[in-house]
Amino acid sequence: MSAQEMALPKPTPIQIFETVQGYQRAFALKAAVELDLFTAIARGSHTAAEIAQACQASERGVRILSDSMVVMGFLTKAGNRYSLTPDPAFFLDRQSPAYLGHSLKFLLHPTHMARFEGLPGAVRRGGSSGEDATLSPEDPIWVEFARGMVPLIIPAAEAIAGILESELAARPSVKILDIAASHGIFGLTAAKRLPRAHVYALDWVNVLEVAQANARQMGMAERYHLLPGSAFEVDFGAGFDAVLITNFLHHFDPAENEKLLKKTHAALNPGGQVILLEFVPNEDRVSPPVPALFSLTMLGSTPRGDAYTLPEYAVACRNAGFNAPKLIPLEQMPQSLVVARKPV
Amino acid sequence: MSAQEMALPKPTPIQIFETVQGYQRAFALKAAVELDLFTAIARGSHTAAEIAQACQASERGVRILSDSMVVMGFLTKAGNRYSLTPDPAFFLDRQSPAYLGHSLKFLLHPTHMARFEGLPGAVRRGGSSGEDATLSPEDPIWVEFARGMVPLIIPAAEAIAGILESELAARPSVKILDIAASHGIFGLTAAKRLPRAHVYALDWVNVLEVAQANARQMGMAERYHLLPGSAFEVDFGAGFDAVLITNFLHHFDPAENEKLLKKTHAALNPGGQVILLEFVPNEDRVSPPVPALFSLTMLGSTPRGDAYTLPEYAVACRNAGFNAPKLIPLEQMPQSLVVARKPV
Repeated sequence: MSAQEMALPKPTPIQIFETVQGYQRAFALKAAVELDLFTAIARGSHTAAEIAQACQASERGVRILSDSMVVMGFLTKAGNRYSLTPDPAFFLDRQSPAYLGHSLKFLLHPTHMARFEGLPGAVRRGGSSGEDATLSPEDPIWVEFARGMVPLIIPAAEAIAGILESELAARPSVKILDIAASHGIFGLTAAKRLPRAHVYALDWVNVLEVAQANARQMGMAERYHLLPGSAFEVDFGAGFDAVLITNFLHHFDPAENEKLLKKTHAALNPGGQVILLEFVPNEDRVSPPVPALFSLTMLGSTPRGDAYTLPEYAVACRNAGFNAPKLIPLEQMPQSLVVARKPV
Repeated sequence: MSAQEMALPKPTPIQIFETVQGYQRAFALKAAVELDLFTAIARGSHTAAEIAQACQASERGVRILSDSMVVMGFLTKAGNRYSLTPDPAFFLDRQSPAYLGHSLKFLLHPTHMARFEGLPGAVRRGGSSGEDATLSPEDPIWVEFARGMVPLIIPAAEAIAGILESELAARPSVKILDIAASHGIFGLTAAKRLPRAHVYALDWVNVLEVAQANARQMGMAERYHLLPGSAFEVDFGAGFDAVLITNFLHHFDPAENEKLLKKTHAALNPGGQVILLEFVPNEDRVSPPVPALFSLTMLGSTPRGDAYTLPEYAVACRNAGFNAPKLIPLEQMPQSLVVARKPV
């Protein structure tokens, strides 16, 4: 063996093995949430025996599951006592207002997982096949999404509301269009800060029931208007001060997005803004990890969707008549805002 | 907000999100292997267009899949050119003698994955339910295992053969028992270095066909003897100098393992050794990551299996009549050897 060969680290299959076992980590986290392990620990159970009693599970099963949560960074272990790390204490304790346990149902939905088993076909064709795509009108998966994902998007909703508040608070009337409104929380969070704002929420009719229920619960039903149907087909109306397009454009190809941005442009008042919430990887497309990997999620689950870079959004915005967009990264979230203005 | 609150990092769902998406990473790696992406790059295709042509896939699909491999550390990217990192160059290029692509079929077998969907039940009961456990006699999954896992275990087989060679090379006759022989490579690698050794291979009858084919191919059929059936039921015979129990004891509970070690002890000559190949976590049970998480794999796929610590193996060995075992970590592998001697 030469000196050069000796200097090279020996190849090891460990990283391959860890990647392959990634599905077990995902299911372990889902199981811990389903069994309310994090809630039990937050309520004062710390040993496997105590947690097992609180979760009505076996001590052996809880010990192994809890150890796996320590390996993944969601718990710490001192002797035989488990404690929560900050993220699961905030997001996975059912008593927390930010509890996002329900969202795991959407993220690990069997429809999604089954589609990834067919990933080689999606790579060959360049996208997930049409017939089993997630995007069929009124797919019940979007209702689960609307219910489950709310806690995940609160920081983004607050950031968007902040932008709109600073811009529109002084106006006597405000019209906001919320495309792919889902749970409605983006538009509603803005409307809460802008008491004169009317929100027009667009989504599939069954999803809008969730949004409307939230509008009622937040006391904004009278300022909340429904536009049921496809964003590509429904008439938006006109005279909007802002249009929100959140977690939506990644489902489509650049031509479809340009079409939608042109339609958005037409519905906006001069000087109005379109605000996108998106996974925006760097131009290298391989960083940061979460936005970069979101491209794979779209390959596996949509016919032509992708995670687009800022220069790609800049082309689409320019072609649709907008000024150059600016990127606003969000603390605590893997997504960013992309904001573009219709020239006055 | 107090100074103390400001000092704390804000909670973020990013790690939860990344863990949940772990199944997509696993399927992405499997898809890359199935499409022979790594082989194409090893053979000189570097851009997405070149790789797509070599893999008969779409450029868009290959670009997204390759970017995901960069995020996971299996490729590098410079401009639009992809290159292999050392581990996939060694293990995932079909031209490499260490190609382990086939093992991904076993590791991501639908039987395994389906079982993990039922993990909450396994935690409640303390193990995977009996009726759908992997361990049914002559389950065809073990044939796939036997075929697919060979490249993964070569370093361990060489380490075991080294131990046996230094101990037994001078003997006029040598008898080795290879329990759960699978592909047979552990016993056969030892027999290659010990020309007078006879190997007795125990496994399900359909699996032994794979082992026997390997024995023939390696020119050792005459020194290779088959013991088809369950290790708990088949008569081992006697007079063995060494017994190999590789990747096996983790399927069972401590009582079953003690029973098997007693039977092993009875079959060994005084001074003979039992050599275990196992995932051995530290006593904290949460490090190193791969052996620690193997406990979860066993919870999800066996009724009572686990990843045992060295002190736990020490108890089992002592109760079976062995001297205290020693742990031999293996470079390049997540498993370790545990070696115990029958007193003279």
